[in-house]
Amino acid sequence: MSCIGVLGGMGPSATVDFMNKVIQLTPASRDQDHLPMIVLNSPQIPDRSSAILGNGPDPLPILLAGIDLLNKMDVGVVAIPCNSSHHWYSQMAERSHAPIIHIADACVLAVPTTPDTRVAIFATRGAIKSGFYQQALRQRGIDFLIPDSDTGQDEIDACIRAVKAGQIQEGSRLLDMAMVMIAKAGANAIIMGCTEIPIASRGIVPSWLTLIDSALELARATVAFALEKRWNQSP
Amino acid sequence: MSCIGVLGGMGPSATVDFMNKVIQLTPASRDQDHLPMIVLNSPQIPDRSSAILGNGPDPLPILLAGIDLLNKMDVGVVAIPCNSSHHWYSQMAERSHAPIIHIADACVLAVPTTPDTRVAIFATRGAIKSGFYQQALRQRGIDFLIPDSDTGQDEIDACIRAVKAGQIQEGSRLLDMAMVMIAKAGANAIIMGCTEIPIASRGIVPSWLTLIDSALELARATVAFALEKRWNQSP
Repeated sequence: MSCIGVLGGMGPSATVDFMNKVIQLTPASRDQDHLPMIVLNSPQIPDRSSAILGNGPDPLPILLAGIDLLNKMDVGVVAIPCNSSHHWYSQMAERSHAPIIHIADACVLAVPTTPDTRVAIFATRGAIKSGFYQQALRQRGIDFLIPDSDTGQDEIDACIRAVKAGQIQEGSRLLDMAMVMIAKAGANAIIMGCTEIPIASRGIVPSWLTLIDSALELARATVAFALEKRWNQSP
Repeated sequence: MSCIGVLGGMGPSATVDFMNKVIQLTPASRDQDHLPMIVLNSPQIPDRSSAILGNGPDPLPILLAGIDLLNKMDVGVVAIPCNSSHHWYSQMAERSHAPIIHIADACVLAVPTTPDTRVAIFATRGAIKSGFYQQALRQRGIDFLIPDSDTGQDEIDACIRAVKAGQIQEGSRLLDMAMVMIAKAGANAIIMGCTEIPIASRGIVPSWLTLIDSALELARATVAFALEKRWNQSP
């Protein structure tokens, strides 16, 4: 019997949030109904956004070592609850025997396609520079907004840093500021395209914005894959 | 560099709760300050309490397979956020190269030793029958109460089942009933000696009972071990 592999720790709270979402989305009345997972919580992986921006060491060797370890343990699918690391998706997917679910592809499927939707991408500066969300949205023909320093990006950066430091309340305050700024710029939906952001959004979901949670959408796709394979059914 | 190994999934929410406690107890201002963990979330392990009571299949072979896998991945210490599985502690410890932190030993250290303390053990019927909490308390010279059907054990059983089924609110209601019953029997402190119970206790901590959380105490001991080894410092 195979299982879900999680390349995590980027950051650790985002990995736990993702695991919780997998558990919540699995129909279960006892332990044995749940889905097996092997989780590498590897917080020492160098900062992904800094590397993309050319300001820090390359995380790819450690990302690939994680992919190798998960494959060595025979996982049947890999989920990576960190958006920015998907800058190296093609290198990781090429290396992995198990398929890797792309977080942005999963997430973009949940963006409403009604003509009045104006979606903004809330992510690290590295993920924005990488461009994989823009590409995934364009492929579905969805127009989008990208925040700049006047429309919330500074607050998004600070929110992500706060959550990584365990300051959730401060993260929520900063996220709320960014939401107000981007709404003034015309957005009525937000892709929470960094897995720290859904942690900051708990309890502050405004009625005037549709929030699309990349961690939840990755969990949804992962659970669907694993239930289809019946990995929760004892041999 | 080594890391923490977690033999989990018993149940999955208890494993996530334990990971969260490790994260909260680690001094960190960024991802890279956190402790690396490899987590086997293996919910298919047969029910531990039923096996101890002679009503179900033996989980030991799968527990040992988990211990073997964690050792193969070179973890430096093993934590098992499931109390009942510690019935097989000696077999697992004998098999493991990495030391296994005993959840009951870690937990009992947090029980107040003031003469007016009357502590009750809230655990599965299997863990109670196994007797490792009673033994750990006797070794420290601490007297204890064990609930029976008149003093909360039925409610404790139902609380644990409810949390495993994702019904946290129902678990909290049942735990509160058990607390009232055991307090009437003379207890003023409770060992939450099943890792589902702390999940049910969120938001319902009564002022008239001291709660000792086995998942928290295991996390405390695990973090202390790992910080001492500096596993959160990049090589």
